[in-house]
Amino acid sequence: MSESLRQLAELFQENNQFVILSHVRPDGDAFGSSIGLAFILKEMGKEVRVFNEDGPSDVYAYLAGSLSVEKTPVEPPVGSPKVIAVDCSTQERLGERFQGWGVRPDANIDHHPDNPGYAAINWIDPRALATAEIIARTARDLGLPLCAEAAAALYVGILTDTNSFSFRPLRPETLELAASLIRSGADPEILSWRTFRNFSLNRFHLLREILNRTRFSAENRIAFYRLDADLYAKTGTTSLEVENFLNYLQLVQTVQVAFMVEEIGPQLTRISLRSIPLIDIRPVAAHFGGGGHRNASGARASLPVAEAERQLLEQILPLLRSTS
Amino acid sequence: MSESLRQLAELFQENNQFVILSHVRPDGDAFGSSIGLAFILKEMGKEVRVFNEDGPSDVYAYLAGSLSVEKTPVEPPVGSPKVIAVDCSTQERLGERFQGWGVRPDANIDHHPDNPGYAAINWIDPRALATAEIIARTARDLGLPLCAEAAAALYVGILTDTNSFSFRPLRPETLELAASLIRSGADPEILSWRTFRNFSLNRFHLLREILNRTRFSAENRIAFYRLDADLYAKTGTTSLEVENFLNYLQLVQTVQVAFMVEEIGPQLTRISLRSIPLIDIRPVAAHFGGGGHRNASGARASLPVAEAERQLLEQILPLLRSTS
Repeated sequence: MSESLRQLAELFQENNQFVILSHVRPDGDAFGSSIGLAFILKEMGKEVRVFNEDGPSDVYAYLAGSLSVEKTPVEPPVGSPKVIAVDCSTQERLGERFQGWGVRPDANIDHHPDNPGYAAINWIDPRALATAEIIARTARDLGLPLCAEAAAALYVGILTDTNSFSFRPLRPETLELAASLIRSGADPEILSWRTFRNFSLNRFHLLREILNRTRFSAENRIAFYRLDADLYAKTGTTSLEVENFLNYLQLVQTVQVAFMVEEIGPQLTRISLRSIPLIDIRPVAAHFGGGGHRNASGARASLPVAEAERQLLEQILPLLRSTS
Repeated sequence: MSESLRQLAELFQENNQFVILSHVRPDGDAFGSSIGLAFILKEMGKEVRVFNEDGPSDVYAYLAGSLSVEKTPVEPPVGSPKVIAVDCSTQERLGERFQGWGVRPDANIDHHPDNPGYAAINWIDPRALATAEIIARTARDLGLPLCAEAAAALYVGILTDTNSFSFRPLRPETLELAASLIRSGADPEILSWRTFRNFSLNRFHLLREILNRTRFSAENRIAFYRLDADLYAKTGTTSLEVENFLNYLQLVQTVQVAFMVEEIGPQLTRISLRSIPLIDIRPVAAHFGGGGHRNASGARASLPVAEAERQLLEQILPLLRSTS
């Protein structure tokens, strides 16, 4: 057993009050990991609260325990509970409210390769495809109790971060851990429906609008769309609902890079970028002061949307592979 | 070991020439199973040919061995090779050319629950989510050689029939077999990209057109679209490319049944139906003389497209669950 894992086991055993926190704008792995770990610790008889800068989310309301996620309080809870950060690559991403507590997390469980190890105990495995995978494996290796509710939450963490086991360099271990979560009571069919077939009719209309706006460039090797500031209002949606829509542009075989530009203000543009496994898209995000993963990056550019779009096309062009 | 499995092992061991056939309009599991089994038998030193009524397919050209699939010859090959049917629920679905041979298959490996067992040896497991899963398990249990090419083909069979491990009542065994195929050399990332991100630009335009045509009915519990006879010509696509587009209608949370009607002729309409796990859609397909799975059925109705659509809405309505 590694030293970090031994320390983590000790932290779990020797304390009774825990707070679990994850990153702002939480996704399925942030929620799944937080809630899954909370159930595990509760089964061990511990007092656990789950905080998030953004509070609970309707999107994951089908997960038991999801609606008991609380908005991070401004003051730290009394009793100095141990703080565990999950799926959060930097301490800053735990949110402003947590920063106000002026404390350092006791543990940091994560799979992001750029996690600098900001906590007292850092249990980081960049080979894992989701933090939920690390927690499922840790529970198994330490013999911690895993109820059906924990298994479901962790399954959803893996499901979302692996995009339903697709387009990722899956390891056999990930599939085997997912199998073990099904054995522990996660219902793969229902969880997959709830996770992926959850569009509101408005969101469907937003998708339709985005596909209608999609343009192709550079011999169809680039696909992109532009969102105006008023589109969400017009379709009755929010910016969270546009998440993952670049996947649809990537359906096209010739597309090597897909991006979107979203007008946040007259001089502010949100950029999101995706690329095929062969292309490292991070330099393009870095050009605009952003960052992220090799094949999925983003930035906020202090530029008008049309100018950001122009520079993006210019920056992406030299990265494209020739079509033979 | 079951009697059928023992007989199958004997068939493999004691013969040297094999023909593998699958169903007409072959999908990923038909191709994956055929090609996967062919590689296994070839590794055992056997002579193997793979036939299909429709011949090879560009869609699966990324699978080694895919382009050596042959259009079923009118005459049976000389030497009386043993005939193995894979992923084919009835002997008729092996195609007209095979029917002309006037022989019965020697083995029938399948996962369709309605397979009547039409061969001398019937190795049928309706719990398996793909025939490729049965073949992978059989190879493991009998200790047959599984090269990377076979693993890749079988992985794609599982990937397509489970819709990338989603929206299906997955068994942990399926995920574990997929994990073992990765260990045998299947590349999950590349195979998933090739299988699902393979749209031509024309097919993307077809999708866009279909989403634009999609209508909702019965408090958004039914979603449907209609295809005119000339749409494929207009978008430069074929009817094979519309496959699985009902998935996109099913993204909407309120949708319980999704269907499409396609005008084949003035009095002939192709119908395709999907439903949520709670709803058995087969009675609707049966109304039009069709059939299929509980949540995925189809029919060819001798009706004009508008009349088929009207009757479908009428038939589906009583099956819907109330929205509470």
